[in-house]
Amino acid sequence: MYYLWYNIQEVIKKMYKKNQPTSYTLGITLTIELLKTNPKLVQMIYFHPSFEGDAKQKITAMALELGIKITTGTKIFNTLSQKENCYVIAEFVKTIQEVLKDNNHLVLVNPSDAGNMGTIMRSAVGFGFTDLVIITPAVDHYNPKVVRSSMGAIFHLKISTYESFEAYLNDNLPHDYFPFMLKAKASLNWEFIPRSAKPVALIFGNEATGLPDSFLNVGTPLIINHSKAIDSLNLPTAVGIALYEFSKNVFKSKSE
Amino acid sequence: MYYLWYNIQEVIKKMYKKNQPTSYTLGITLTIELLKTNPKLVQMIYFHPSFEGDAKQKITAMALELGIKITTGTKIFNTLSQKENCYVIAEFVKTIQEVLKDNNHLVLVNPSDAGNMGTIMRSAVGFGFTDLVIITPAVDHYNPKVVRSSMGAIFHLKISTYESFEAYLNDNLPHDYFPFMLKAKASLNWEFIPRSAKPVALIFGNEATGLPDSFLNVGTPLIINHSKAIDSLNLPTAVGIALYEFSKNVFKSKSE
Repeated sequence: MYYLWYNIQEVIKKMYKKNQPTSYTLGITLTIELLKTNPKLVQMIYFHPSFEGDAKQKITAMALELGIKITTGTKIFNTLSQKENCYVIAEFVKTIQEVLKDNNHLVLVNPSDAGNMGTIMRSAVGFGFTDLVIITPAVDHYNPKVVRSSMGAIFHLKISTYESFEAYLNDNLPHDYFPFMLKAKASLNWEFIPRSAKPVALIFGNEATGLPDSFLNVGTPLIINHSKAIDSLNLPTAVGIALYEFSKNVFKSKSE
Repeated sequence: MYYLWYNIQEVIKKMYKKNQPTSYTLGITLTIELLKTNPKLVQMIYFHPSFEGDAKQKITAMALELGIKITTGTKIFNTLSQKENCYVIAEFVKTIQEVLKDNNHLVLVNPSDAGNMGTIMRSAVGFGFTDLVIITPAVDHYNPKVVRSSMGAIFHLKISTYESFEAYLNDNLPHDYFPFMLKAKASLNWEFIPRSAKPVALIFGNEATGLPDSFLNVGTPLIINHSKAIDSLNLPTAVGIALYEFSKNVFKSKSE
């Protein structure tokens, strides 16, 4: 069984490569979201021969208006999608806009899980943090699994990647930095969040290891208090809570 | 490829059945958590022949002290685990304690995703909501995927299932009910949460459909405000935010 399993994982990995210039939206909802938000990125739309109904008409009409070509066939579905019910795929160029240097930032240091990254993107857009910074090494944010679990939120984001936190600092205007760490002394609570004219950067570490201790010397490290019965909160949950707390008070108008 | 893929999915499904009296912890951390929190539930521990090191010694010592038998072999690993690096599995009896009728409750109505349920369990324990109510139909909360994504939090919970919300109401003391719904008029914010002597029940619907409109007539429906650029928050994120907000103010001492 292992042999078969790994064979198939191998096949899946071959379908999408990090260094290729395009990625894919799998499914109707994602494809429509892409056509609405970033139509210029779309290179091709693929229909499965069994694709029928209102969604087909809608996407066909959008593609016609935007001058995007539609190809019908099964090959790309067999290689890209593991789900039986995927009938449409759009191929898009990986050219999401860079973050603005003086906007509020969400900074992910070495995130490793594609599903988590997509979920975090959804929360970031939901709470008005539309500028995402990724410190590499990290999961490829254009991976179709990220795109899918973002539920299309990725197309509402500006995203920049840096090879180190220092490189990020050097390339952006000063922010109020809030690293989220289990060793932090201050607790997340809007009453205690310092206010200043500067934009904020909320910083989160890797799923398994968190942020290195060096971040204890960066800005105002914060902890989300929780029971000792668990080691830590799930990363997307912790990010969601922080975004909720910060947007509730500092960015209320932006998140409406 | 599809044929192979579904064949393997079929094999995986056969390994664990909802109606069997036992379930499994896959991996070292989960197994140790189970031995620490609920040793009486453990029926058998399985070691992979390649299992070595400190963890093996630790688990062996715990098992010896608790009088739990250890079996070494590969069969259960080949059928239960999809990960190459799983070297220990504990089989445990599915007899988690029922919720207390007058504790604070987290109520999940028809949750369908195993990973989400485990993540929610982790947050629930983290924020001191240790009584979980599940309204069926729902994903089996003893599914090894739930156990795994709970990171062991499931063993800190009391859990009850009911076939309907009405059955839950009839069998428990009155609570202050807070259904979380996109159609709610009141926003989640601790300043506006009514205080009473009653325990609270936070209620969440299915991932795809949310709660039915009938819950607009139950207690105080709440919405977590977010941008219109997303349809909704990810379910475990929304639950995490609600638990954070409620535990921060009403249950601070419990979550310490």
